Amino acid sequence: MSLVTKPVVVFPEHRIDQKQMIDVLRNMFPYHPKWDTVERMIKNTEVDNRNLLSPINQVITHPGFEYRNKLYKDKGLEMASEVTRKVLSNNKMKPSDIDLLIVVSCTGFLMPSLTSYLISDLDFRSNTKQLPVVQLGCAAGAWALNRAYEYIKAYPDHNVLLISVEFSSLLFQPKDDKISSLISNCLFGDAVSGCIIKGVPESGDEGYLIEGIDSYLKKNSDHYIKYDVKSTGFHFGLDKEVMHSIKEVAPIMENFIQKDFNKNVNDLDFHVFHTGGRKILDELVSNLDLLEDDISKSRESLKNHGNIASGVVLDVLDNEFISKTRKHGDKGIMAAFGPGFTAEINRGTWIKN
Amino acid sequence: MSLVTKPVVVFPEHRIDQKQMIDVLRNMFPYHPKWDTVERMIKNTEVDNRNLLSPINQVITHPGFEYRNKLYKDKGLEMASEVTRKVLSNNKMKPSDIDLLIVVSCTGFLMPSLTSYLISDLDFRSNTKQLPVVQLGCAAGAWALNRAYEYIKAYPDHNVLLISVEFSSLLFQPKDDKISSLISNCLFGDAVSGCIIKGVPESGDEGYLIEGIDSYLKKNSDHYIKYDVKSTGFHFGLDKEVMHSIKEVAPIMENFIQKDFNKNVNDLDFHVFHTGGRKILDELVSNLDLLEDDISKSRESLKNHGNIASGVVLDVLDNEFISKTRKHGDKGIMAAFGPGFTAEINRGTWIKN
Repeated sequence: MSLVTKPVVVFPEHRIDQKQMIDVLRNMFPYHPKWDTVERMIKNTEVDNRNLLSPINQVITHPGFEYRNKLYKDKGLEMASEVTRKVLSNNKMKPSDIDLLIVVSCTGFLMPSLTSYLISDLDFRSNTKQLPVVQLGCAAGAWALNRAYEYIKAYPDHNVLLISVEFSSLLFQPKDDKISSLISNCLFGDAVSGCIIKGVPESGDEGYLIEGIDSYLKKNSDHYIKYDVKSTGFHFGLDKEVMHSIKEVAPIMENFIQKDFNKNVNDLDFHVFHTGGRKILDELVSNLDLLEDDISKSRESLKNHGNIASGVVLDVLDNEFISKTRKHGDKGIMAAFGPGFTAEINRGTWIKN
Repeated sequence: MSLVTKPVVVFPEHRIDQKQMIDVLRNMFPYHPKWDTVERMIKNTEVDNRNLLSPINQVITHPGFEYRNKLYKDKGLEMASEVTRKVLSNNKMKPSDIDLLIVVSCTGFLMPSLTSYLISDLDFRSNTKQLPVVQLGCAAGAWALNRAYEYIKAYPDHNVLLISVEFSSLLFQPKDDKISSLISNCLFGDAVSGCIIKGVPESGDEGYLIEGIDSYLKKNSDHYIKYDVKSTGFHFGLDKEVMHSIKEVAPIMENFIQKDFNKNVNDLDFHVFHTGGRKILDELVSNLDLLEDDISKSRESLKNHGNIASGVVLDVLDNEFISKTRKHGDKGIMAAFGPGFTAEINRGTWIKN
């Protein structure tokens, strides 16, 4: 059994709304030839607010890749430790109860990885298994839950801790005035999140019991979502072709749900979707014949925090816990999308023991 | 069952011996205040030859992080494809027979990762699971075999393909004249390697059947092996304290082997050790009471190719296949060491079906 218990999502203190962000970018690019288009598209993101690791005047100034990566390490470790302590405490668990530690994070690069710093700093067992992953972008949250599911299939009484560390603001490139980049600057938010996946649920536990997983790579679509790696760090690139991907993933999801639940995706009780952006959510609604209500938790996450990359699925799942509308036995799906183009999908049942 | 079949190890064409390398470095740093020490230590590495991705005059010139990472991508994909084709062909398998694709590589950074490029280019199944890992350095080869073992425990009839892509020459920093860095410049070699881990061995299969795994992190030793991430890329750093680590790992290995095989490590028939360097191998010999013969395959790999990072354990394992001295039922251990400080260990039996 792989029970995903209530996530913890922590946001850095600096908050900015989209109106302020538009002003900031207008001041940076006062002669942008397509400014009207940019402003219209930013307003269309349906992101109201985002949290950032640093004050906006720091975010938009590039202090060098080395400085940024140092900040990533210091703040990443600090916030990952905070999330780890909270999620362990919420589950009445100790670091020594964790057998596998997964850290997913695509906005900085450390060697050794955050898994080893956490094991040292929080006194996990020395034989805790490490799974640090950088290269799966926004798909990494659902990907990690899928790997946790497989791991617990092999070790049914083990526990997995998943931590997502995403500071997309550290990828702000002040000289990049491409329209897609300016939109991305207003789309991604910073957050650190985590949850425990328990092999043996106990009396009183509530959560999302994963019962099946699937992975999908759309071939030859590596240009949809990518980084250019330069002396100035990672340069995020998004191709608008990415919108076509959902049309291809939708039947994969339908088959996956039909096969074991004998239902359509839109018959499910809950839907935890990665909020790639408003258009990705619109595509999900239209290709899966969803009601707006089915994806309200995803829209809510996007609106309040922007796209927090691999952490989105944990935030949306957390919205399900907070809303208290889930009943024991409810059936649901989770799906996240990222570079590759990759989709990671799972399905399961809401449990209230 | 997790049967590791014969690896394929491919080296880039440019070969350099240690005498040439000493000349190159002497010319680069003609006034190095500790040159005599440097030269003596380089001669003590017991590395005779290494293969490099580029001619040495290119290796020692830094063309920028962006250029190097582009080279990493182009050559990495080309050589990983070659290794994939060979290892599949040797096993009479097709890309569609692979369920999980693991790529370990710590000498470049791609988003999307090499897993997704390989799935596209070589026409793996769209639902092939991806496990791309960057942050485990030299421990990643044994780490990946341990993850493959767990994966096959969950899915007993699945197959895993492991690819290691290591071009340490892309981390050469021409301005770094620290003694430890100059030694590292003469220690690491480039290679791409791979192997298949089969869930269901067939008649005629030969290989290393993994029967148990272990992981170990020495706490607060993150400074032993690390990268500084800068605008010029990854700067490798090695602290001589790393030599003390084997003293701590040795009893972990002894317990691990004693527990299930009821033997000492030095009673085993074969030993596949990561060749961190000559001193690491010497420490293994002295702390585990090994005979020189026990680690001859590791010494051979170090001598002929240098430390090829995560690929070492595959090269040493390949030396076991090539030597044809293994008998059905032989018992052995594999261990690799990397940043953290992390050790990944497994044990098993040599199978000739």
